[in-house]
Amino acid sequence: MGEQEQMRDRPIGVFDSGVGGLTVAREIMRQLPNERIVYFGDTARVPYGSKSPETITRFSRQIAHFLQTQNVKAIVIACNSASSCAVEALEQEMDLPIIDVVRPGARAAIAATRNNKIGVIATEATIGSGIYSRYIKEQDCDAMVLSKACPLFVPLVEEGLWEDPVTDEIAGRYLAELIDVGIDTLILGCTHYPIIRSTIGRIMGDSVTLVNPAYETARELKRLLQEKGLESGHRPGLGTELYRFFVSDAADKFQKFANSILTYGILSAKVINIDEY
Amino acid sequence: MGEQEQMRDRPIGVFDSGVGGLTVAREIMRQLPNERIVYFGDTARVPYGSKSPETITRFSRQIAHFLQTQNVKAIVIACNSASSCAVEALEQEMDLPIIDVVRPGARAAIAATRNNKIGVIATEATIGSGIYSRYIKEQDCDAMVLSKACPLFVPLVEEGLWEDPVTDEIAGRYLAELIDVGIDTLILGCTHYPIIRSTIGRIMGDSVTLVNPAYETARELKRLLQEKGLESGHRPGLGTELYRFFVSDAADKFQKFANSILTYGILSAKVINIDEY
Repeated sequence: MGEQEQMRDRPIGVFDSGVGGLTVAREIMRQLPNERIVYFGDTARVPYGSKSPETITRFSRQIAHFLQTQNVKAIVIACNSASSCAVEALEQEMDLPIIDVVRPGARAAIAATRNNKIGVIATEATIGSGIYSRYIKEQDCDAMVLSKACPLFVPLVEEGLWEDPVTDEIAGRYLAELIDVGIDTLILGCTHYPIIRSTIGRIMGDSVTLVNPAYETARELKRLLQEKGLESGHRPGLGTELYRFFVSDAADKFQKFANSILTYGILSAKVINIDEY
Repeated sequence: MGEQEQMRDRPIGVFDSGVGGLTVAREIMRQLPNERIVYFGDTARVPYGSKSPETITRFSRQIAHFLQTQNVKAIVIACNSASSCAVEALEQEMDLPIIDVVRPGARAAIAATRNNKIGVIATEATIGSGIYSRYIKEQDCDAMVLSKACPLFVPLVEEGLWEDPVTDEIAGRYLAELIDVGIDTLILGCTHYPIIRSTIGRIMGDSVTLVNPAYETARELKRLLQEKGLESGHRPGLGTELYRFFVSDAADKFQKFANSILTYGILSAKVINIDEY
């Protein structure tokens, strides 16, 4: 087998602070069904969204090193907070294509907006980094970007209140400013948010386009693999594990949540000590 | 200065997964005004309440080692999740008195109950460990203990919704079973919960006694220091720092929250890399 062919058969590394990145993995599974995936969720140190850029970058670097030991051909940062804080460091340090969730989401929002008023909802870390606003303005200097941190969305989703008056009430408070300003496009800038997409959509109204960066990220990955000749040409054979899952803590809980997100049922997740990477 | 006297002048080590343990530190400051305190909040890895016992024990061990480097004379585990999972390991491994928040809280609840029906509200880790129930039953085998995990309370407190209809609604749901069973004593088994004590008290009604383990823990610490002859006999002199604060991430945010909890204003918190201990 030639070197390029071996390279093509390697898995994609996908990582997140915990379970949220499974919404990105799900999109990759759907759009790139021939690709193997190694997923890592940093469940021992979740959440990232309330932590500092330095800490998020340190954690992301350890995870990238772990994924390298799994022989991945590309790394998808399936976490907006990690994308916001660590993408540049990883691009400089790693000899692998790095795909983040922020840039594809920003591009999709620019394509979608008609009135040039774009909203971004995300964690404190992502909003604090200002990265969505920066990317959007670099590409369309006329765009107005209104950002809003929504720290309670992740715990509400993890508590299972996907359709609940409390989630409606909290979403109504967070989104009020965005409605007042009259945005026509809203980026769901945290991988947990697509899970409460219907609540957010109901509050924003039909005239606002919701952008899910997970979808755009999987498209971007596909384009990049094609460009570099790294796309897997065939479905892996019987006996090859298509998807593998690693976490830094609490594999059972991860598995349970994963099975509520993925159509594909996951059988197990392996716990590793991420501090050692 | 004699060895015992030097020992008496050493600080108390207090640790928590983040800011919650400040409610315990506050009680120690109040009840033991002559004692110096070194506080550590594990803000890089907060929260502990949703994590596994193994991971919580590993993190607690690293923190105890860090506190030893600060020359502490005793360690207070000011976090119910860490108390539940790690107290026995630390007692075995450390050559220092270890005070946890669970046992003092359990004893106070036994003293307070009249109908022998005790409720415990706490994080998933604390409830999952079953430790409150075990301690209470060891001391009073007739007591009935009803436990309820309340995972949204910590994010609601950290979001500042201390008096809010959403917190009322969520508390109403979590506490309904405890009211139905007719408990007369409720342990606030997470250091964040005393901050929403008035909401919890309003929902439970006047006939239910709320037990705050922070108060009992400070009393227990005082008793233990007296018994071992380790109590500081005098207020530290000018130029000695009474209270020092360390965190593993985001010192600014910690400082802001600390200043909303403590009457004493904290000037700074130092960031250390806790993985190295």
